[in-house]
Amino acid sequence: MLTIDPAEIPVPKLHHYLLGAVGPRPICFASTVDVDGRRNLAPFSFFNVFSANPPIAVFSPARSGRTGETKDTFKNVSAVPEVVINLVNFAMAQQMSLASSPYAHGVDEFEKSGFTPIESECVRPARVKESPVQLECKVIEIKELGKNGGAGNLVICQIVKVHIQHNVLNNDGMIDQHKIDLIARMGGNWYCRANEASMFEIEKPITSIGVGLDQMPKDILSSEILTGNNLGQLGGVESLPDETSVNEYKLLELSDLFIDMESDQKGLEIALHKRAQELLHVNKLEEAWKTLLAFNN
Amino acid sequence: MLTIDPAEIPVPKLHHYLLGAVGPRPICFASTVDVDGRRNLAPFSFFNVFSANPPIAVFSPARSGRTGETKDTFKNVSAVPEVVINLVNFAMAQQMSLASSPYAHGVDEFEKSGFTPIESECVRPARVKESPVQLECKVIEIKELGKNGGAGNLVICQIVKVHIQHNVLNNDGMIDQHKIDLIARMGGNWYCRANEASMFEIEKPITSIGVGLDQMPKDILSSEILTGNNLGQLGGVESLPDETSVNEYKLLELSDLFIDMESDQKGLEIALHKRAQELLHVNKLEEAWKTLLAFNN
Repeated sequence: MLTIDPAEIPVPKLHHYLLGAVGPRPICFASTVDVDGRRNLAPFSFFNVFSANPPIAVFSPARSGRTGETKDTFKNVSAVPEVVINLVNFAMAQQMSLASSPYAHGVDEFEKSGFTPIESECVRPARVKESPVQLECKVIEIKELGKNGGAGNLVICQIVKVHIQHNVLNNDGMIDQHKIDLIARMGGNWYCRANEASMFEIEKPITSIGVGLDQMPKDILSSEILTGNNLGQLGGVESLPDETSVNEYKLLELSDLFIDMESDQKGLEIALHKRAQELLHVNKLEEAWKTLLAFNN
Repeated sequence: MLTIDPAEIPVPKLHHYLLGAVGPRPICFASTVDVDGRRNLAPFSFFNVFSANPPIAVFSPARSGRTGETKDTFKNVSAVPEVVINLVNFAMAQQMSLASSPYAHGVDEFEKSGFTPIESECVRPARVKESPVQLECKVIEIKELGKNGGAGNLVICQIVKVHIQHNVLNNDGMIDQHKIDLIARMGGNWYCRANEASMFEIEKPITSIGVGLDQMPKDILSSEILTGNNLGQLGGVESLPDETSVNEYKLLELSDLFIDMESDQKGLEIALHKRAQELLHVNKLEEAWKTLLAFNN
């Protein structure tokens, strides 16, 4: 274990560790205006949604680690407390990154990055037409976390209007997690794209209460085959199958295996755990449990 | 465009839209204790880092959308203002999800999920041994965003100690973005895994200032071949190649193409844009620019 006292390493190094540890981070592509109405557009990954009622998002245009200066976005929301938070999909990645160049104050990053400004309904800053979801927000508070280089500023935003492109909606009118094709920020120059290759599902236990790993037989917990993820899945069932159903399953589905491996109990156990693992991969929890419990039944 | 006034739809539906729009969200696997020292462990994806100096992370244990109740984690940090934020990798996914079951107050989710508690150095809550990065934090403020169902609570945490597993570090002692194998939360039951298949790099313009799309020739901007990402990349160069270097490149690298397609100017333009696109895919910006500019030279 590498253990670090934040007070004892240089701020830029700590910053790098935090950027590499906390991620992938969603991207707020923030559109703001100064008092003269001049547009600014810049991406921030110190960002998330934090509440649905009221609907609140927070992002942090931090002070430069090198100069301690605040960013145009910070100055703008301080003067005109409104922002459009545009979400960013893969098709927008390179132009969004271009908008993060340190252009001089007053340069319109919409023009530089080639995104199309469209008028908002409730706030002065423009929306990014190309963005799949655009959140019009009123800034309800700005909380400065420090005054030195690297200090964040919590820009607390109430979402007053939500715009969603039709082509990212599914048949139920909700946002399809594949169609929206979001990207997120990581450490270094890395981004993560949420696509077929990287997305996976876990059924969320909203009301059901899993038995937990503490209720599982020791020989299963200490399996050489089953991973932590396998055990976590197994722990999610509300109750273990009873002896009768295990015996029935053993007779119907596992008798060949038990006969073949009769003289090799260790091999039998491994074979059963491997089979249970395959069943878990296709989310057949009940059958996986019966397979595992058959060994000592 | 689907346009929604947050005040006019039910909170759970708005919540779903926000969960589907803002992502992938990093996961705070929060370890806390009550006044009697009883452990609690629960994941939250309304979470991010917001500042490096001071080092600040924020997460939100929101009130239940159904009951308006606060969570054990909220009660714990209100009573004992300390938390360990454990980051979550792919190997921890199923056990982490299990810990999000609605176990009764006083149930130790370390035991239920089978994670190993290890003592912290500066705070009372335990760390999760299996987590690749563990952040010991003092809660410096809790900001309630509302009192009704779905209301978030900003738990503002100062990071007082950082623990990083050696096996996620690269040779420079920094966190390797491939080795850490982070997962993040999306809408519905979806998660995103940051791995080889989903990660990509964009060189970040920290000091260089790209010419921008507003400085690009119209025929390139209106290309039928080049995508927004291609244009964004092209806009990142600090200056366009001069006529002499374009002519030289045209003579050396493109003369076959110009001769073959002499009688088909439209075809030639398309061929040049396709070749430029291939060059952009391997990050050869200078050559891509010369290829595009050769057409009108």
